[in-house]
Amino acid sequence: MVSAMSESQVAPEHMTREEFRQAGLEFIDLICDYWEDIEELPVNPSVDPGSLLEALPESPPQEPESWDDIQSDVRRLILPAITNWQSPGFFGYFPANASAPAVLGELLSAGLGVQGMLWSTSPACTELEMRMLDWLGEMIGLPDTFMHSSGVGGGVIQGTASEASLVALVAARSRWSGGGELKAYASDQAHSSIAKAIRICGLQEDDLRLIKSDPDDAYAMQSEALEERIKLDVADGVAPFFICATVGTTSTGALDSVRELGRIARQCGAWLHVDAAYAGSALVCPEHRAMIDGIERADSFCFNPHKWLLTNFDLSALWVQDRAHVLNALSITPEYLKNTATERGGVVDFRDWQIPLGRRFRALKLWFVIRQYGVAGLQAYIRRHIELASQFEQWVEEDDRFELVAPRCLSLVCFRLRGDDDRTRELLERLNATGEVFLTHSAVPDSTGTMRYFIRMAIGATKTEDHHVQRAWSLIQRETSAVLDGG
Amino acid sequence: MVSAMSESQVAPEHMTREEFRQAGLEFIDLICDYWEDIEELPVNPSVDPGSLLEALPESPPQEPESWDDIQSDVRRLILPAITNWQSPGFFGYFPANASAPAVLGELLSAGLGVQGMLWSTSPACTELEMRMLDWLGEMIGLPDTFMHSSGVGGGVIQGTASEASLVALVAARSRWSGGGELKAYASDQAHSSIAKAIRICGLQEDDLRLIKSDPDDAYAMQSEALEERIKLDVADGVAPFFICATVGTTSTGALDSVRELGRIARQCGAWLHVDAAYAGSALVCPEHRAMIDGIERADSFCFNPHKWLLTNFDLSALWVQDRAHVLNALSITPEYLKNTATERGGVVDFRDWQIPLGRRFRALKLWFVIRQYGVAGLQAYIRRHIELASQFEQWVEEDDRFELVAPRCLSLVCFRLRGDDDRTRELLERLNATGEVFLTHSAVPDSTGTMRYFIRMAIGATKTEDHHVQRAWSLIQRETSAVLDGG
Repeated sequence: MVSAMSESQVAPEHMTREEFRQAGLEFIDLICDYWEDIEELPVNPSVDPGSLLEALPESPPQEPESWDDIQSDVRRLILPAITNWQSPGFFGYFPANASAPAVLGELLSAGLGVQGMLWSTSPACTELEMRMLDWLGEMIGLPDTFMHSSGVGGGVIQGTASEASLVALVAARSRWSGGGELKAYASDQAHSSIAKAIRICGLQEDDLRLIKSDPDDAYAMQSEALEERIKLDVADGVAPFFICATVGTTSTGALDSVRELGRIARQCGAWLHVDAAYAGSALVCPEHRAMIDGIERADSFCFNPHKWLLTNFDLSALWVQDRAHVLNALSITPEYLKNTATERGGVVDFRDWQIPLGRRFRALKLWFVIRQYGVAGLQAYIRRHIELASQFEQWVEEDDRFELVAPRCLSLVCFRLRGDDDRTRELLERLNATGEVFLTHSAVPDSTGTMRYFIRMAIGATKTEDHHVQRAWSLIQRETSAVLDGG
Repeated sequence: MVSAMSESQVAPEHMTREEFRQAGLEFIDLICDYWEDIEELPVNPSVDPGSLLEALPESPPQEPESWDDIQSDVRRLILPAITNWQSPGFFGYFPANASAPAVLGELLSAGLGVQGMLWSTSPACTELEMRMLDWLGEMIGLPDTFMHSSGVGGGVIQGTASEASLVALVAARSRWSGGGELKAYASDQAHSSIAKAIRICGLQEDDLRLIKSDPDDAYAMQSEALEERIKLDVADGVAPFFICATVGTTSTGALDSVRELGRIARQCGAWLHVDAAYAGSALVCPEHRAMIDGIERADSFCFNPHKWLLTNFDLSALWVQDRAHVLNALSITPEYLKNTATERGGVVDFRDWQIPLGRRFRALKLWFVIRQYGVAGLQAYIRRHIELASQFEQWVEEDDRFELVAPRCLSLVCFRLRGDDDRTRELLERLNATGEVFLTHSAVPDSTGTMRYFIRMAIGATKTEDHHVQRAWSLIQRETSAVLDGG
């Protein structure tokens, strides 16, 4: 009945089991070596733009190359030209943690190669994610209404907080039924991804009202200014459909008042999104939950375990209190995605909770991390970093060449040399030139409205210990002396 | 100078090198076992909604669990409840290939844990991606103007084709300067992600004009209808800012004419985006490049190596001829992202080419796959699947109980039982119930406008060989007899 098939096209050679096993083991060892030796490497590579491009062939190879060549090129070309985000001397931006169980989760996810767009396209992918987001929600003290177990709310893994904000924004727009010209509100300290999401979703720059933060209130959004602005806008027939509260801003870790913003949002019918991308990880420790006091008033909440909870990028967690708004905004079902489970109802199809259609099995790494460390281990991890930052803050305070730009937020300390910005700029350049540490900068207005450049010390790499922070402080003191003597 | 730090908070225990090494090796073995045994597993698991949820604890563990427990739960709870996308009997949707070198790339990317948002945050991450997109562009025959080497165009890795479409859409909107009410145009066979992107970017459902496809032209968009519609719209003062050509639609693999749509786009000033998510992989074979004849007229082009080019999800490749429009649409630079390299110019910051800010090191897996297989190996892989599909198509044609719904497109064959839809629906249910194969369905209107339900046979899993396709055909024949006898 079935005729023999022709074999004019020979299938390509795949790696054998033994080759894959060998290469996998070598990479595990390479990663172990990298993690062990990372302290000896300059945190930031000194490479010129274009140097890797020049070292790579202009055209792809026609015939297969040997794995040995490929692997040795990793060591020769790639390792010297990456920024070592996992270095214990990395204090820049916010951390982007890796850990062994998370790496194993990524490995397994890649090996299984399943697509979780629908419940039916891989049930375990969806259900493990539901349970992990409920676990995580419980760990950070979210009300039950945010949980899948509520049947109404629920959490979902996004790639980044930028995507989470965009999802919240389109859900908010979809929920808004009042007419009027749409306006969104956020602190002038909100992350740039809010402005980016505003653009993507088709609103104009002016449709995002940036409410002044208060230098005398640690750069929290001035809730009174928000309320006033919304009153004026509403009087003008404008539709305040979206408010973003930032809990732990990127520049200084400022904490907008969720309770106040929630009150205002409820008054005017706006959606309240809480962006706690960095600070959210600290909520695993009950002593930090005051940061989100009033969270029951939020419609959505996001934080990034991929920043500071030992879970490799990408894994941003977004919860909503009412999933219907997200589904209304994002659900489109063509014939080719119809399936019995969806039609019967009672299953969650996460493609309707996100921008893309496809999704990989990211809940595995969260499962492994939470079980491998336990809640207690994750709490200890966070507390240790906060303690290191607290100690660092004290050193800064005790040295009167420096000033704190804002009170420490968790593991973030913002400081500058008193006086002209140029000194602090020079200090940062000198510090990063040592290769032993890497820090980044930002700028905020002081009480007089003058922009002040400062250095951010963001503690949170997986392997950062007390002696790394001590070493950073020694370097800061040494380079400060050089700056001040030179100046 | 530095006082000793208190140690009241003990850092958590991380896996030791030996533990990680052991666990990594076990997972590599688990993946090898999985790939080897996958043929014996039902392609689609038979699990009830909620069964994994019930098997998982409601709350996270307070204390660390042993890796043995975690690992054995993977085998006990996860493996039986995933859809086996890597099974050689998986013919549903479109493929989502995994391969050993791609898995190794994901592993390494996770282990290095770098962030590629800016050139300066990990130079190798950006430059390897630039070179890989130039390699890939050359492999599929894109004009040089799409390459980074042109200094004007260039390619970028996106998570999915959905995101690529959204990026193209916002770039198109940003480029449009003519005023008027914005309208986008796509085939009624275009992927649902186009409609989703339209919603996300704030346009209304009616702002996407779905142009009729032609059943007598293999469901390609009727270019004359597009031209006519745009003429009418322009006469009404409407702004045709975006046209999407689909090369290889999801339902039947229809090929819109890039040359014709490009001509129309140039006439009216619209952006032409080419979505070749599935079919694009076949362009590595020169004999298939006629599919994108006229590509020099496109502003952007996307395909998914994560579908059919042995590169694990997620890796969607997007090229533009003029990067300036993407940058104008998406670039926002707050103080905390400013850096010397960006300010000096001459570097690419890929965060401005995508929706999110953060990005992981996905170019590694592409580099490994291209080098491990060589261009010749990837060509052989594609040609082998197309040959299998061609054989399958012939069997369908020779059996007059069946009809082809459209001519085969590459490795996709769309067929149905002649007569009522219910027979075909029953056949699909019976086939999938065998557990030996998994296929999915779609529906298109026939020449009379009646919707016809059909089965899609999408060949492309990494390990699909001739005997798997033969076995699928045998099952189809057996179950067809049962359906027809029963009916």
